[in-house]
Amino acid sequence: MKNEIKIFSPATVANVACGFDVLGFCLDNIGDEMLIRKTNKKGIFITKIEGFDLPMDAELNVAGVSALAMYEALNVDYGFEIEICKNIKPGSGIGSSAASAVGSVFGMNELLGKPFSKTQLTEFAIKGEALASKCEHADNLAPAIFGGFTLVKSVSPLEILEIPSPDDLYVTIIHPQIEIKTSEARAILPKEVSLQSAITQWANFGSLIHGLHTSNYELISKSLHDVIIEPHRSKLIPYYNEVKMEALKTGALGCGISGSGPSIFSLSKGLENAKNVEDAIKNVYSKADIKFDTYRSRINTEGIKIIN
Amino acid sequence: MKNEIKIFSPATVANVACGFDVLGFCLDNIGDEMLIRKTNKKGIFITKIEGFDLPMDAELNVAGVSALAMYEALNVDYGFEIEICKNIKPGSGIGSSAASAVGSVFGMNELLGKPFSKTQLTEFAIKGEALASKCEHADNLAPAIFGGFTLVKSVSPLEILEIPSPDDLYVTIIHPQIEIKTSEARAILPKEVSLQSAITQWANFGSLIHGLHTSNYELISKSLHDVIIEPHRSKLIPYYNEVKMEALKTGALGCGISGSGPSIFSLSKGLENAKNVEDAIKNVYSKADIKFDTYRSRINTEGIKIIN
Repeated sequence: MKNEIKIFSPATVANVACGFDVLGFCLDNIGDEMLIRKTNKKGIFITKIEGFDLPMDAELNVAGVSALAMYEALNVDYGFEIEICKNIKPGSGIGSSAASAVGSVFGMNELLGKPFSKTQLTEFAIKGEALASKCEHADNLAPAIFGGFTLVKSVSPLEILEIPSPDDLYVTIIHPQIEIKTSEARAILPKEVSLQSAITQWANFGSLIHGLHTSNYELISKSLHDVIIEPHRSKLIPYYNEVKMEALKTGALGCGISGSGPSIFSLSKGLENAKNVEDAIKNVYSKADIKFDTYRSRINTEGIKIIN
Repeated sequence: MKNEIKIFSPATVANVACGFDVLGFCLDNIGDEMLIRKTNKKGIFITKIEGFDLPMDAELNVAGVSALAMYEALNVDYGFEIEICKNIKPGSGIGSSAASAVGSVFGMNELLGKPFSKTQLTEFAIKGEALASKCEHADNLAPAIFGGFTLVKSVSPLEILEIPSPDDLYVTIIHPQIEIKTSEARAILPKEVSLQSAITQWANFGSLIHGLHTSNYELISKSLHDVIIEPHRSKLIPYYNEVKMEALKTGALGCGISGSGPSIFSLSKGLENAKNVEDAIKNVYSKADIKFDTYRSRINTEGIKIIN
C-alpha cells in the first residue's frame, strides 16, 4: 500500500441560480493540490501550507478538522501528514474551504484502501467546512467529491443526487478581488419571500433539472434565473449587472453569483462561447479599479482525483 | 374528412405536492366523453350535456369558451356542435373544467386536420379554464393534452415540459363529496413563506424531477413532500391527515391534495399497492358521515384521445 498520495481538489460553484442552497457543480482546471502522507506518529498534522496564510494547527484548519473527523472514526496506530498547495483564494466564492475539507479526507480514504463511501467522505468534510462557514452545508463539498452537477436534497440525513449534464457545457468565472463578509451576505437575505416568487423559483429549478437531464441548452438557459437571492446579493458585487448583461449579450446560457460571491459564473455552450464571454466580462472589469482573475473550465464530471 | 369525432378527455391531478402550481399528471380511466360534430351553421353550439347541470350557452360553458377561442382563430364557413357526457364532477379537484376545456379544442383540431400544436391547443383551453377558475393557468390542461407528467414552466409565454415517469406508477384518488370554495382555498394560502421552507420545497421538487427521470421510486417517495401549501389547505379536507397516514402506512410513495381539493391523491409502485391503498383510505372514510368516491389509475401517458 502506498504511503503518500497527491490530490487535485477542485474548485466548485454552489448556489447555481434557481438552485440556491442545493445545486452545485465542479470545475476542471482550478483547484488546490494536496499531499497526504502516512506517518508513524498518531494524529493529524498539517506540515506545509503554500499559497495563502492559513493555520497550521489541525484543529484550526479546515482540512485538519475534516481529517480529524475521519481519524476519530478510525482505529489505527499511525497518523497522517497533510501538505496543502492552496491555489483557490479563500473567500473567492468558488469553494476554497470545500476543496481543503474534501482533499484531506479523500486522500486519507485512498491511502486506507477506500473504506468510506463518497457520501461518508462528504459527512466528514462537512465538519471541516463548518469551521469556515459556521454552518453545516454540503453544496460545495458534494460537487468536489462526486464531480459534475450535484443536488444536495438534504443535509441531515445527507442525501446527494448526481445530476447528469450535457458534454459541451463550459463555465467562465470572474473573481473580483474584493471581500464580501459572510455575515453581510447572510444578513442581506430576506427571511420571508413571496409565495409567487417561490413558485417561479421552483418552476425554474425543476426545469433546470429537466434541461440538464435532456441536454436541452435552450431550456437550461431559460431556467437559469434566480428571482429570490440575486436581487439582494448582487448589490454586494460591483458591476454585477454589467457583467451579467455582457455575458448574456455574448451568448452565455446564464449567469449568476458563485456561492455567496464575489465570484460570478457564466455557463456557455461550447468552449468558443466561454472564451468570448471571458473576453466580454474582462472588458467590463478592465474599466473598473478592481483587481480580478478569470477562469474558464469544462464541467468536471470526475471530481477530486489522484495526480502524480 | 370525418364530420364527427368522439373523445375521451381525462381527469388530471395538479399541484403535485412540492410541485404546487406547476406539476400535474394524467389519469387513465376517469374522464369525460365528448362528441364534436361539424355543422353547416357557423358558430359553436353546445347541443347536449349529460351527467351534470351545466350551461348550454357556449359563452357560459368552459368547453364552449375554449372552442370559441379556437374558432376565432379559424376562417371557416361552418361551425361545430359539442355534446358532453360529463363524468368528472365539477369541483372535485381532479380537473373537471380542464377536461371540458381541452375536449372541445382537441376534437375540433382533429376534425380540422390538426392545424394546431398541443401547446396551441393548451392556449385555447386556457381561455375556457379561466371561465371556471377566474385565472389563467394550465396545470390541469397540460397533462390532459400531453399525457404523463407535465411541468408548466410558465403560462405567459406558455412553456410546457413533458417529464418522463416510471412504467409502474399508479395513483389512487379519494374524492370526498364536500364542496371547497375556490375563494376559500385561495384565501387560506399565505402571501409570504419563509425562505427556508421555500428552499426545502425546491430541493424536493428538483429531486422529484430527477426521481421521475431515473425511475427511482425511493427518491420519488422521499421527494413527495409539500411544506408550503399542504399545512394550510389540508385543514379544509376532513380526515386528510388520517387518509395520508393510512396511505403511507400501506406503502404509498406519497400522498397530497389533488388540485385545490377536496380530492386526495396517493402514488404507488404497482397496481397491487394502489389497490391496498384504496382499501385503506376507503376504510378511513367509511367511518365518516361523508359520501366519497375512489378511483385507481395508471399514469396515462397518452392523454386525451379519440374513441369509437
